[in-house]
Amino acid sequence: MDWESFKRLRGSQKKAFFMRDGNIYHVIMAQQFDRGFLDEICNLATRIRQIAKSNEGTRFLLSLLQGRRAMLYFVQPSTRTFLSFMSACQILGMQCSEVRDTSTSSEVKGETPEDTVRTFSSYVDLIIMRYPEPGFAERIAFLLNNSGRPVPVINAGSGRDQHPTQALLDIYTLHRSFEDQGGIDGKKIALVGDLKRGRTVRSLAYLMKNYEGVKLYFVSPPELRMEDDLKEYLREHEVEFEESEDLAEVIPQVDAVYMTRIQDEYDLEGESKRIDYSRFHFKVEYLQLLKPNAIIMHPLPRRQELPTEIDQDRRAVYWRQVRNGMWVRVALIAKIFRVGGEIWHY
Amino acid sequence: MDWESFKRLRGSQKKAFFMRDGNIYHVIMAQQFDRGFLDEICNLATRIRQIAKSNEGTRFLLSLLQGRRAMLYFVQPSTRTFLSFMSACQILGMQCSEVRDTSTSSEVKGETPEDTVRTFSSYVDLIIMRYPEPGFAERIAFLLNNSGRPVPVINAGSGRDQHPTQALLDIYTLHRSFEDQGGIDGKKIALVGDLKRGRTVRSLAYLMKNYEGVKLYFVSPPELRMEDDLKEYLREHEVEFEESEDLAEVIPQVDAVYMTRIQDEYDLEGESKRIDYSRFHFKVEYLQLLKPNAIIMHPLPRRQELPTEIDQDRRAVYWRQVRNGMWVRVALIAKIFRVGGEIWHY
Amino acid sequence: MDWESFKRLRGSQKKAFFMRDGNIYHVIMAQQFDRGFLDEICNLATRIRQIAKSNEGTRFLLSLLQGRRAMLYFVQPSTRTFLSFMSACQILGMQCSEVRDTSTSSEVKGETPEDTVRTFSSYVDLIIMRYPEPGFAERIAFLLNNSGRPVPVINAGSGRDQHPTQALLDIYTLHRSFEDQGGIDGKKIALVGDLKRGRTVRSLAYLMKNYEGVKLYFVSPPELRMEDDLKEYLREHEVEFEESEDLAEVIPQVDAVYMTRIQDEYDLEGESKRIDYSRFHFKVEYLQLLKPNAIIMHPLPRRQELPTEIDQDRRAVYWRQVRNGMWVRVALIAKIFRVGGEIWHY
Repeated sequence: MDWESFKRLRGSQKKAFFMRDGNIYHVIMAQQFDRGFLDEICNLATRIRQIAKSNEGTRFLLSLLQGRRAMLYFVQPSTRTFLSFMSACQILGMQCSEVRDTSTSSEVKGETPEDTVRTFSSYVDLIIMRYPEPGFAERIAFLLNNSGRPVPVINAGSGRDQHPTQALLDIYTLHRSFEDQGGIDGKKIALVGDLKRGRTVRSLAYLMKNYEGVKLYFVSPPELRMEDDLKEYLREHEVEFEESEDLAEVIPQVDAVYMTRIQDEYDLEGESKRIDYSRFHFKVEYLQLLKPNAIIMHPLPRRQELPTEIDQDRRAVYWRQVRNGMWVRVALIAKIFRVGGEIWHY
Repeated sequence: MDWESFKRLRGSQKKAFFMRDGNIYHVIMAQQFDRGFLDEICNLATRIRQIAKSNEGTRFLLSLLQGRRAMLYFVQPSTRTFLSFMSACQILGMQCSEVRDTSTSSEVKGETPEDTVRTFSSYVDLIIMRYPEPGFAERIAFLLNNSGRPVPVINAGSGRDQHPTQALLDIYTLHRSFEDQGGIDGKKIALVGDLKRGRTVRSLAYLMKNYEGVKLYFVSPPELRMEDDLKEYLREHEVEFEESEDLAEVIPQVDAVYMTRIQDEYDLEGESKRIDYSRFHFKVEYLQLLKPNAIIMHPLPRRQELPTEIDQDRRAVYWRQVRNGMWVRVALIAKIFRVGGEIWHY
Repeated sequence: MDWESFKRLRGSQKKAFFMRDGNIYHVIMAQQFDRGFLDEICNLATRIRQIAKSNEGTRFLLSLLQGRRAMLYFVQPSTRTFLSFMSACQILGMQCSEVRDTSTSSEVKGETPEDTVRTFSSYVDLIIMRYPEPGFAERIAFLLNNSGRPVPVINAGSGRDQHPTQALLDIYTLHRSFEDQGGIDGKKIALVGDLKRGRTVRSLAYLMKNYEGVKLYFVSPPELRMEDDLKEYLREHEVEFEESEDLAEVIPQVDAVYMTRIQDEYDLEGESKRIDYSRFHFKVEYLQLLKPNAIIMHPLPRRQELPTEIDQDRRAVYWRQVRNGMWVRVALIAKIFRVGGEIWHY
């Protein structure tokens, strides 16, 4: 199959192409993840976290991918995703190299981006890439599959398009927080803020179809409502949702509040300034409205929508969410390199 | 205690806060170091240097912090301090990640510097930071102590404020050089050059109160004399000193000559150009004036104040001083992670 | 001997100076490599490649230089050479640090480049450097040899002057490709394109004097012919060559076609635009003219002179050439640190 034909396939049809012998190989888009996979990755992440608590366990993890090399190719700045992946690789004993800046690359000599990445792939066993152009990671996965020496590719963010491991870490945070409350199934989750332009809330909403009886609350200013395509998708997959502009009224009803900042970097002409976003801030007094076992999430970075006073509350899990991102990436890389079994048998 | 109250404490009162169970945890300011600590670190550095001479010893050191991760967060450029710390971490088997440039950070998305560093701290076991703003490392140490998952912070330079490990390496160089001459106690040390604006000479002078019978000679142009606050401090702690403008006359009297370059990057209006700094250069013929067991130090980088011809002289220890910086940082990190005992028992 | 006297020596006279106890120490210029050395390095690279195929072998290689540290000092951008060297170091278990940008260095504080590199060398066991100024790596090797603590220096490219490991990887690719065809001796090799300004083709041509009965074909536009000094050198060493402008006519006669792009970054006034370079493109139909056992090489990056359709042909070895660069660098570093014997005995 050539690239043009492949590109036109639906996500679900592409899925097989990102597998190898029944195991995940390339991680390109959130649509690749089904319920079985999500449960497996979450459980593996938890197991890894436990193993890492002892020195002996830490050494065991380090030995798993000793001698394997990862390349972090980050053309767009993203220190937190970068560091999270780098730490994940290091936990498994991989050696890392990095390109964080295009100006150091030989693209100046007229090379195509495909040749550049193929060259990088020659030196390593895994490519983790962030690239502004939507679909680029997918094209590289396709190209490498057709080369003599493929290596797995993980998409660490491609413009506003996909950021599949961010979605994984949100799922893992929900999974872990509701471990003793029957899991994610049946939970009520409020997504708050700039739902129109936030990539993370969109991905998370998509993945909710994998869980039974979840209800979503979209709480946003009218100008920043969740897009129709996604609502259509949820209806099709029978995920219940409702829209609201009243955060204080929604909070007491839900098990999780997912806060987001206004994404004014996507403003066309400063329209964010005309929106009263303060109505979608989590005020300190809202803590009293929140159920005792509910959680507060945020993908970070945050601004005023989530005051630092809230950090001390037991239900604020966003700092743990950051760590979860690292653990779930460890689990994902372990899965790609098929060492999950060794981890379970440890 | 809140940050505002903490900030107003004196250095000696803050000291306890940077400890944990009687062991050093955060390294923020030179005032934390007392004589017992300085001796312990110097002896540990020497032991580590000896162990590192054999392949077996090298492997032993590598095993000590295997699986621990350090983050080098250097917002201000400083290649030599950066590399010295990185090598120190590597010697102990730590894996490193680095942020050397603010433009790659998500501060662009409106995040506070505190949130940025707390995010970084989520991925690692140690933060080594250089930051232009005085007191910032201290604020981070305070913040992390109050978080659910503290990690130790080492201040690798905060503006003109503090650079505690630079002071440590100077002390270690003196300690090592005078090992067979009764140690630092009772030694005469000339500090030469831009004493007004040189952070290293100031820190070194402060630490001299920990030693008995030391005499300091401040040799500088009148415009660049040591500041009054420091002289006041020395008087208070009964450290003898005298001031001079005649380098050739001071050299025969001292056991150590600590040279420094003119810090013209701090000029307000090019005043350095009006100073005849050549009188404070170490001329090749001065080697004949210097005692046979005395030493010549320099924090580097140097300019004309220390000609390269002097490098060949046995008493020139400034290249060894560079290596000492690495070894003393290894000792410091070993101490923070409480593996000093294992090193002594090796 | 002082630097000025040393500098004036011929390459062959300098050779001894780059050795230590009969073993290569500094790698500065292609003239250092004789036939014995080239054969040894190529065979060692092949052995290493085989060992690296198993997990156990990978671990053995990792153990060889465990606890040694390499510094990659790349003042000029060159991502591919950088990554190739970094991976080579990692394969042998070395820890790496890097300076890829002069702005982070303390040269801003008026330090000489010699002091800067000597400082870097204090922290590590190997310096790999790319520097725009011809002869700089040589000067550093000279300086370090005369210091109290020398470390080996590898020249990773010094302007248009020397790039000895690029020549090694080309030799290794020829060696490996002709392993079952009697080796490089007696082979016919076409060098195609910008022969006037391409550093790689010049170095490769120089090294051909080490092989018996090789014939070179220089295929280029008249404006970009191989320089006279090199042709003189080949005549002196009795390496046969002929010049041509007809690529299609040369292809059927040769065992290797070494393609190169036009080096228009060296244009003085846009003269490249006046050259019809398309006559020196490898057209897809040329594949039918090429001998079944011949190979197509390219140092990459490429432009239109080598269409991607050719990548699928069994005789296209340029992607393998990229990997060969990594393996031959592993062999070179192993040789410098005298672990070649251990590798052979594995």
